[in-house]
Amino acid sequence: MLKPLLVIALGGNAMIKGKQRGTIEEQIENITETAKQIMKVVPKNRVVITHGNGPQVGNIMLQMEAGSHHPFNRPVLPMDICGAMTQGQIGYLIQNILGNLLLKEGPPSRLNPQEKIKVTTIVTQVVVSKDDPAFQNPTKPVGPFYSKEQAESIRTEHPEFTIIEDAGRGYRRVVPSPDPTEIYEKDQVNKLLEAGFIVVAGGGGGIPVIKNEDSTVQGVEAVIDKDLAGERLAVDVNAETFAILTDTDRVYLNYNTPNAEGINTITRAEVQKYLDEGAFGTSLKGSMGPKLRAALRFIKDGGKRVIITSPELAADALEGKAGTTITP
Amino acid sequence: MLKPLLVIALGGNAMIKGKQRGTIEEQIENITETAKQIMKVVPKNRVVITHGNGPQVGNIMLQMEAGSHHPFNRPVLPMDICGAMTQGQIGYLIQNILGNLLLKEGPPSRLNPQEKIKVTTIVTQVVVSKDDPAFQNPTKPVGPFYSKEQAESIRTEHPEFTIIEDAGRGYRRVVPSPDPTEIYEKDQVNKLLEAGFIVVAGGGGGIPVIKNEDSTVQGVEAVIDKDLAGERLAVDVNAETFAILTDTDRVYLNYNTPNAEGINTITRAEVQKYLDEGAFGTSLKGSMGPKLRAALRFIKDGGKRVIITSPELAADALEGKAGTTITP
Repeated sequence: MLKPLLVIALGGNAMIKGKQRGTIEEQIENITETAKQIMKVVPKNRVVITHGNGPQVGNIMLQMEAGSHHPFNRPVLPMDICGAMTQGQIGYLIQNILGNLLLKEGPPSRLNPQEKIKVTTIVTQVVVSKDDPAFQNPTKPVGPFYSKEQAESIRTEHPEFTIIEDAGRGYRRVVPSPDPTEIYEKDQVNKLLEAGFIVVAGGGGGIPVIKNEDSTVQGVEAVIDKDLAGERLAVDVNAETFAILTDTDRVYLNYNTPNAEGINTITRAEVQKYLDEGAFGTSLKGSMGPKLRAALRFIKDGGKRVIITSPELAADALEGKAGTTITP
Repeated sequence: MLKPLLVIALGGNAMIKGKQRGTIEEQIENITETAKQIMKVVPKNRVVITHGNGPQVGNIMLQMEAGSHHPFNRPVLPMDICGAMTQGQIGYLIQNILGNLLLKEGPPSRLNPQEKIKVTTIVTQVVVSKDDPAFQNPTKPVGPFYSKEQAESIRTEHPEFTIIEDAGRGYRRVVPSPDPTEIYEKDQVNKLLEAGFIVVAGGGGGIPVIKNEDSTVQGVEAVIDKDLAGERLAVDVNAETFAILTDTDRVYLNYNTPNAEGINTITRAEVQKYLDEGAFGTSLKGSMGPKLRAALRFIKDGGKRVIITSPELAADALEGKAGTTITP
């Protein structure tokens, strides 16, 4: 009998916290902490891991900008490539650190009991519709802040870019955040799961690609929300549970007010009702909005439950002892 | 009956040619040309692809250097991470471009004849011995050129770095180039091959890791020769043929002299004899030395043949009509 399949979406904090710059020491320390928490759920679950890449892709875009001038004159690469680079970077760190912990303390592999479970990272393209309305309305800020003069010069050089003013902090490029429709490498992920591996896939929301008339896929300059991509991944691998790990212990009504009330278990219909009433308060202005949207969608798509909690509480949350559980 | 298994090692020219800077347009054009050549061998072979990353990792190191100063102040990450980033970047491009060609014109998948063969990239660690003598004698130049003052300042900041003077062009960091002993993700590559995929693995010679006493693996600042890593990969997947694709049509005796003589077929013993006699001439000062070393090692490790030729001639070379074939 196969263990239940769990897709874990790791927030940015799992790799680079708050005001950290993202040095290698910081990333190794943070990922080690997160990996220790994931270790607690490995004995009872088959696991797929996806992750954000905001700080890492931000660093790459700044470094490319810095390196594009004299005396370096290195080419600036588009966002799909930058995303692919972060999948290599973060995937390697997770695969190395979690793989080492599994080697020392993990359960045996299902198909090969002489060995421990191994971790593998798949470079993952995620399909979005070329008719997605997000392409008409770019909203996701990326890359460096610019002065007004720099912004105008970039608009001249790249008329296809949308540059907006960001409330007093300068000018910034925004890109579309379209909806994921398919994990392009889902067959590969499923084969590796069948073979007993833990798979890291869809990092940073995946490398965004659109499908052409002839079904070929082509990278686009966009950022897919990592929780929505994680939901798609959870559906495409037929996971029972989708766990969104972030920097809060659970979801709150009236978040950040004296009336704040933590939610333990809630149905999809109740989440929808509270969303309609605005009862989640200011948490929706942060990242909770996409998380709840991803959660509702997973249940609608046939998933059994969504957990929203911190990495530290993930194992307890899976046993119903912590975090927020969203059910059909 | 399974088709024979072929490991292809792509040289840097397959992605970024000679004096190109490595813009996305250049990389897409070059990889498309290479992928069209690989398409010719797909009908008769199962394929694993590995590739160099010299220009790409060079760009990342320069961009990190540029971005490390005011006003960017982004962290410089170590070489294992930079290598992992190039595996994501180049793996994505190969997987996207070759995948699209296969979708349009490729043969059906062996296990699922309704579908075309798919391509997948595995983030790959490659184990080297921590006792490898290369760690005592770093020889591989990496990253930017420095002035004498910069070199001294870096030596102070990073006493663990080896900085050498590079014949009139300034100062440069050199890192060890240890021998690959194991493709750490070989089981993952083999499972994906069994499932009928084309696999991209071990890019840039792999992410170099050493094995600790407790068998955990740990990234090191080093560069593994991509042809030697490709040889290890070819052995670890049990390939019949190892094809090293580069910028020459074949191997020459007395290379670049009036007496130059192209080699069609040669045994391992003859290669060894010519090497001992110095008969390959100046080609050994370029990249032909490691290629011949990798070729000899593959035959010694039980491989059936090595092909050394250009991507354009790969299909003909596999039929014995072009290139150099090295046999037991």
